[in-house]
Amino acid sequence: MQKIGFIGTGVMGAAMITNLLDAGYPVTVYNRTKVKADAVVAHGATWADTPAEVTRQADIIITIVGYPKDVEEVYFGKDGIFSGAHAKQIIIDMTTSTPALATKIANYAQAHDIAALDAPVSGGDIGAKNGTLTIMVGGSETAYHAVEPIFTVLGHQINLFGQAGAGQHTKMANQIMIAATMIGLSEMLVYAKAANLDLQKVLMTLSSGGADNWSMDNYVPRILQGDFQPGFYAKHLLKDLRIALDGANEMHLDLPGTKLAERLYTKLSEEMHLGDEGTQALVKLWASFQ
Amino acid sequence: MQKIGFIGTGVMGAAMITNLLDAGYPVTVYNRTKVKADAVVAHGATWADTPAEVTRQADIIITIVGYPKDVEEVYFGKDGIFSGAHAKQIIIDMTTSTPALATKIANYAQAHDIAALDAPVSGGDIGAKNGTLTIMVGGSETAYHAVEPIFTVLGHQINLFGQAGAGQHTKMANQIMIAATMIGLSEMLVYAKAANLDLQKVLMTLSSGGADNWSMDNYVPRILQGDFQPGFYAKHLLKDLRIALDGANEMHLDLPGTKLAERLYTKLSEEMHLGDEGTQALVKLWASFQ
Repeated sequence: MQKIGFIGTGVMGAAMITNLLDAGYPVTVYNRTKVKADAVVAHGATWADTPAEVTRQADIIITIVGYPKDVEEVYFGKDGIFSGAHAKQIIIDMTTSTPALATKIANYAQAHDIAALDAPVSGGDIGAKNGTLTIMVGGSETAYHAVEPIFTVLGHQINLFGQAGAGQHTKMANQIMIAATMIGLSEMLVYAKAANLDLQKVLMTLSSGGADNWSMDNYVPRILQGDFQPGFYAKHLLKDLRIALDGANEMHLDLPGTKLAERLYTKLSEEMHLGDEGTQALVKLWASFQ
Repeated sequence: MQKIGFIGTGVMGAAMITNLLDAGYPVTVYNRTKVKADAVVAHGATWADTPAEVTRQADIIITIVGYPKDVEEVYFGKDGIFSGAHAKQIIIDMTTSTPALATKIANYAQAHDIAALDAPVSGGDIGAKNGTLTIMVGGSETAYHAVEPIFTVLGHQINLFGQAGAGQHTKMANQIMIAATMIGLSEMLVYAKAANLDLQKVLMTLSSGGADNWSMDNYVPRILQGDFQPGFYAKHLLKDLRIALDGANEMHLDLPGTKLAERLYTKLSEEMHLGDEGTQALVKLWASFQ
C-alpha cells in the first residue's frame, strides 16, 4: 500500500487522516502546532519533525494548511517538502490556495520529476469526517489516476478539471457562488425582519421554491437560534474571495458581486473582528441582528 | 360554490383560471387585451367587458396583472373594481406589487366593508399550470380562511404572513434572495469559463455541495444551451427589485447586494434591451456569454 505523508492536522486534516488510517494506509504526519496531531498519532499515525522528514518517509504527500503563505512555507521553506522530495513522488495540495501558487509548485515539481496535484475540497468538517468531500483536482491525468483510490477514501464527488491550478479555479467558482448566496440570505432576513414577518415561516416558504439554496436551508436556522459558530470561518471565506478576485483581475474580469462580498466580509472580519465566527455572521453587519 | 371574477389572463392568470374552472368554480374574466382571454373563454369562462362588470358578477375577485400601475388602474380606475364592488365581497391581488399599494387597497376596501388580501405567488408558469404555486398572503385571517379552498386549487405552499402588505413583503424577501443568487451564478460561470474549466463538470460539482441552489440547477443548463427564453422575465425581476428597494428605503435599510442587482438588471433591460429575455440573461452582461 502507498505510504502517505500528511501535513496539516487541523479539523479537516485530522478527519481525513483518520479515514486514511481506517482504510489501511500508513500515514506519517507533521503539524506546525504539534499538540494538534496528538489525536491522529493516538489513532495510529507516525509523527515526523519537519515537512522534509514526512516527505522522505512517503510515496504520496498531502498538504492541507491555512493560507497560501503557509503552503509556500511548507513546500519551499527550510525543511520544507521540496528539500526532502525525490523523483517519482506525488504531492497533493488540498489547501484552498491560489491557482498561481499551484502552478508554481507544479512547475518546480515537474523540473524534479515529481508529480503535483492541486485538490481543494468542499464539504466542511462533516464531509471530511464522513469521507464525503467534494474534491476538485488540477494536474496531470497520470498522477490523478495514481491517487484516485486515496481520493475515494476522502470524498464522493471527485473530478479532474485540467492542468495545475484548475482545481483551485473550480474551488474559486464554488466560493463565488456561495458568497453571493450569503449576501442574499442576509439581506433577505434583514428585510423580512424589518417588515415584521415570521422568519421561520419565511424560510419555509422560500425553501419551497425558486429561492431555495443550501446555505439558506443550513444557515438561516442557525442564525435564528443565535448560533454563529463556524461551520466555515468568515475569515477563510474572505481569504478565498481575495484569491478569487486576484484570479479575476489576472483574467481581466469585473465581478461586482464578488467585490461586494469581499468588502462586506472585510468589514465583518477586520472592522467588527468577527472573522472567527461562521460565514453566517455576515448578517451581523445589520444592527437588527447584532 | 363561490362565483369568481378573475382579471388578468396572461400566462399565469390563464393557467390559474383553467384550474379553477376544472375544480368546478364559475369564473368571469376580463383582460385588457381581449384576445388573450380566448383560450379560457373556450374552456368555460364567461367574458365581461370591464373590471367593474366582472366585480358585479362575482363573490370573490382575483387580479394578476403586470405592474403596480396596472393594479392601481384595475382597482381605482374608470370602470375599475371599486366602481362595481359591494359589501361582503373579497378581493385578492395576486400581482407582485408594492406593499404600500396593498395597504391602500385594503384601507379603501375596509371603508366599504369589503375584505382585501394581497397574495403574490412564486413558482412561475409551471407552478401555475400544475396548481403548485407558493402563495404568500397578507390581510385578515377571516378573509384568508374564507378563500383558503380557492388558494388550495392554485397552490401547495400557502401561508398568511400578517396584515395587508405582508404577502408583498414576503415576495420581496423571496426576490432579494433570488437576485443575489442570479448574480452569483453569473459571476461563477464567467470566472469558470475564463479559467477554461468544463462548465458542465463545474455545475455537477457545485450542485453536490454547499454552493447548491435552485436557480443554478435550473438556469445554468439553459445558459449552457444558449437558451435565454423567459421562465421569468428579466424586466419583471427588475420591477420587483425596485419595489424591494423602495420598501427597504422606507424601512431605512441599506441592502447593497439588492442595489447591485437592481443596477445590473437595469443595465440588462434598459441599456442592452434584453428585459424580455429570462432572468438568466444576466450573464450576457459579460462579453464571454454574448
